[in-house]
Amino acid sequence: MGAIHRVVIVGGGFGGLQAARALKRAPVEVTLLDRRNFHLFQPLLYQVATGALSPANIASPLRAVLKRQRNATVVLGEATGFDLAGRRVLTREGAIPYDTLIVAAGTRHHYFGHDDWEALAPGLKTVEDATTIRRRVLIAFEEAERATDAADRAAWLTIVIVGGGPTGVELAGAIGELAHWTFRGNFRRIDPTQARILLVEGSDAILTMYPDPLPQRAIESLARLGVTVLTGARLVGLDAEGVVLDRGGTRERIAAHTTLWAAGVVASPLGRALVPAAGPAAPGAASLDRAGRVLVQPDLTLPGHPEVFVIGDLALLNGADGQPLPGVAPVAIQEGRHVARAIVRRLAGGSSGAFVYHDHGSMATIGRAAAVAVIGRLKLTGYLAWLAWLFVHLMNLVQFESRVLVLAQWAWNYVTRNRSARLITGEPPAPPGAAPPAPEPPAAPIPPAR
Amino acid sequence: MGAIHRVVIVGGGFGGLQAARALKRAPVEVTLLDRRNFHLFQPLLYQVATGALSPANIASPLRAVLKRQRNATVVLGEATGFDLAGRRVLTREGAIPYDTLIVAAGTRHHYFGHDDWEALAPGLKTVEDATTIRRRVLIAFEEAERATDAADRAAWLTIVIVGGGPTGVELAGAIGELAHWTFRGNFRRIDPTQARILLVEGSDAILTMYPDPLPQRAIESLARLGVTVLTGARLVGLDAEGVVLDRGGTRERIAAHTTLWAAGVVASPLGRALVPAAGPAAPGAASLDRAGRVLVQPDLTLPGHPEVFVIGDLALLNGADGQPLPGVAPVAIQEGRHVARAIVRRLAGGSSGAFVYHDHGSMATIGRAAAVAVIGRLKLTGYLAWLAWLFVHLMNLVQFESRVLVLAQWAWNYVTRNRSARLITGEPPAPPGAAPPAPEPPAAPIPPAR
Repeated sequence: MGAIHRVVIVGGGFGGLQAARALKRAPVEVTLLDRRNFHLFQPLLYQVATGALSPANIASPLRAVLKRQRNATVVLGEATGFDLAGRRVLTREGAIPYDTLIVAAGTRHHYFGHDDWEALAPGLKTVEDATTIRRRVLIAFEEAERATDAADRAAWLTIVIVGGGPTGVELAGAIGELAHWTFRGNFRRIDPTQARILLVEGSDAILTMYPDPLPQRAIESLARLGVTVLTGARLVGLDAEGVVLDRGGTRERIAAHTTLWAAGVVASPLGRALVPAAGPAAPGAASLDRAGRVLVQPDLTLPGHPEVFVIGDLALLNGADGQPLPGVAPVAIQEGRHVARAIVRRLAGGSSGAFVYHDHGSMATIGRAAAVAVIGRLKLTGYLAWLAWLFVHLMNLVQFESRVLVLAQWAWNYVTRNRSARLITGEPPAPPGAAPPAPEPPAAPIPPAR
Repeated sequence: MGAIHRVVIVGGGFGGLQAARALKRAPVEVTLLDRRNFHLFQPLLYQVATGALSPANIASPLRAVLKRQRNATVVLGEATGFDLAGRRVLTREGAIPYDTLIVAAGTRHHYFGHDDWEALAPGLKTVEDATTIRRRVLIAFEEAERATDAADRAAWLTIVIVGGGPTGVELAGAIGELAHWTFRGNFRRIDPTQARILLVEGSDAILTMYPDPLPQRAIESLARLGVTVLTGARLVGLDAEGVVLDRGGTRERIAAHTTLWAAGVVASPLGRALVPAAGPAAPGAASLDRAGRVLVQPDLTLPGHPEVFVIGDLALLNGADGQPLPGVAPVAIQEGRHVARAIVRRLAGGSSGAFVYHDHGSMATIGRAAAVAVIGRLKLTGYLAWLAWLFVHLMNLVQFESRVLVLAQWAWNYVTRNRSARLITGEPPAPPGAAPPAPEPPAAPIPPAR
């Protein structure tokens, strides 16, 4: 063979970054393309959304992560499509040729066809989402504090979280913690513990992937933080004044100025660029499921394109139990590692081999010192589950530095119940209304001095 | 006397917050009005702008700071004017009556009549300013990395900082540090140490408030970080492609895609609301200087209104040397404390007394382990000055928590020369161009799983 084998990775999330790092000693040239200049530790994003951590605590600049990996180049940019025949990734700044392509473009929010809900109920995928939620939640309490009308105050003190999966549960728990503990003594007119936090789930259970009795324990932990779980409650209406729920055919309106979205995601639109244009699919051709995920071969390659791998949340592969592998970080990380190994094996003349997922468990935390966890056949709740959660998440933060600082921050938060990152930022300072009247500007600046 | 004495403070910066805290044991009711929900430690804002610290590291939620002070109420809102005769602060949500008013509304940027420069050259006053500068500087290096044209690459690698006061010097030093040390090994096509960092000053010296030889030492420290100081260089033109400097009558165009503003501030427009409407000033009436600052009496009260104090950067008072007191944190803090004492003395039947500023020195830091400092008659440079700077700033961070975390972060930054908070956030992910083509949305979300 002639030139060095070029591996292009689209997406620096858990799967893409893991693949890049696992190729460190491989005889290849790695290009990692991402729209953002940092890897985000998404499982802790809800802690940014509730003021416990800063964005930088859970983000690692991709260039810093890969700076000692001389065979890796980070490119800041956005893939707009693929030229599969010509083996090129298309971007606005030009095409990037590859010998092997790894697509790890992830997912985005899905509002069930109600795109107008997006502005009303922010989801939690990006750093900007997290600071938007933080701003909305903090402003809700500020508005309640200055409300003069009792009904208006109640609507500001009602926060609806849509979706009873892990994200919804963790977000609801953290907001309950904020209202019950962090805000203690902070306000003079309202009692923040009177906040009504509603976790709304359309199906008849929350945390459906967890075995009994964990969902029930989670509901009890949430109740202690003032969170009411409403199952069998389908969201059918949403505006700035509140939500409309359908509960077994009965419609109910709840006045709430703050609604947060944790209800669903769909695959990145880049998945569609990997399959032949619409029409009856040719046998053996790549295809998408209804959520836009790419159906991959057992070795994670795209049907008909053994040189293209699809991994992470964008890929759809059934596990040993016949169920699709869940869209969680451990699956993406193991897939990234598998693909790196497959590339090395192929370069040595071998074959890629089927991917096998090793499930080490799952966990979700509920406020301070409470969580639910499944580790193998072990089911944990309460403090022990929370310690396990703490340990696993600290160990997995990409950079050593983040671990130390996050641990220091958490230790402080734990002892004081304070959350120092509760800053209302990113929008005009005074929430309602416009800028103050600007009278004629002065003639000269203040002379420099210090 | 009947009802409790009401003190309203406009502005939660150094002066306003200090006044509120110093009134803790006073027989008064304190209302602190601010547009933001946090106090900002502005002297370290340049470290946020250059990715060394997170906004939350240098911001303290006002409600948290004052939560144990039962006589203090925080109101999130914006003063739009004053009814001095009726003794009320006007806000969009209604008027707040006072018996004593403390106005500590601070300053804002001043672009010498070139308001169009504001969007081109962001200043450094708020958290949003800092993250804007951070984004611009980081994107400049990213654009240089992907530039295909040599002239374009050079323009991206040229960063102009306008203003040779402490803010400009500290910002330039930190950007030099970023280019020379933090980015080492991060890029594959550009050499970040080749960045051209220009500190442009209209007068013939930088750090004019410091005695010789400190300005010269600062220039030498800056040079070691690749910063070129251009004195006697007046900015006469600014657009997205670069700046035009007037150097002793000769005009010079410098191609630069990134220009930052550290050149001047003017007083808050609220100052104007404190003086009688334009026209020949009545004898003894309040008035403003050309920069919009309010000329105050020796006891910091507004002429004609002994119940109104003006403090901090908004106030103009001459010091013992006949020169106006500088607009720095120590002046504002001492003024806040003076006013609190004056209020207590008056309530006890005494008088407010003249304010006397005690100058404990000034310091500016230049990158890692270099600074200039004046402490009494002591002049320090280099490492020792930097240690003094470190100590003073750590001790002054409002919350104990911030001190510990900032120290941990700085220690880590010092050892590794890393800056983990270099996140490009707050704007559409891919810098140039629009969102990718969104093909028809999928029919169903990915089922919840974990």
